Amino acid sequence: MDKVNLAEKFQLFSEYWSPKIVGELNGQQVKLAKFKGEFVWHKHDNEDEMFFIAEGTLNIEFRDKIVTLNKGEFLIIPKGIEHKPIAENEVLVMLFEPATTLNTGNTESDLTKHQLNWI
Amino acid sequence: MDKVNLAEKFQLFSEYWSPKIVGELNGQQVKLAKFKGEFVWHKHDNEDEMFFIAEGTLNIEFRDKIVTLNKGEFLIIPKGIEHKPIAENEVLVMLFEPATTLNTGNTESDLTKHQLNWI
Repeated sequence: MDKVNLAEKFQLFSEYWSPKIVGELNGQQVKLAKFKGEFVWHKHDNEDEMFFIAEGTLNIEFRDKIVTLNKGEFLIIPKGIEHKPIAENEVLVMLFEPATTLNTGNTESDLTKHQLNWI
Repeated sequence: MDKVNLAEKFQLFSEYWSPKIVGELNGQQVKLAKFKGEFVWHKHDNEDEMFFIAEGTLNIEFRDKIVTLNKGEFLIIPKGIEHKPIAENEVLVMLFEPATTLNTGNTESDLTKHQLNWI
């Protein structure tokens, strides 16, 4: 049972769109990720997903709107809702989602990560 | 599907040890709380609990050690582990835990909150 310091963990990796696991509770995982650029349109059929912004600004595009998240803000995306994260500049994100969640949801692409690592 | 700004939500209440619900996903709730002083010893028999520090410093006392959490740090306390939060000064905390979690766990006291409100 060790505490996790977000800033220290974010220093351990540099690749974008590659979430790292930093915690697990009640079948849910806490993941850290760095985003930059455009992700792919996708949805998660069975999992709600939470994005909390630790640093930077993240735009999340939906079919009918864009939500802009700044540091200290979070958004919960219900299962089944198509979305596409876009980060003009690097953004540091903490994710909460079930351990079963695939990063690209229902979409398979070069960005799909089937195996996530703990850091 | 609205974003949540932590700083704005924390301005909406002032009482200590009284978590407010700000989000729900996959049967888990996201809660915000202000702590100051000493809480009661307790454990949660069925729920792991996560404390993320948004502002300030929180000490969490265990039977065999104390963990000090600062801003930007989190700790996951597994179910069944007795703990007692202590905050010398006001601390702003984001909690993740199942919707069923009672704040004082297995202990009933004046601090027990049976009904939490959304803000």
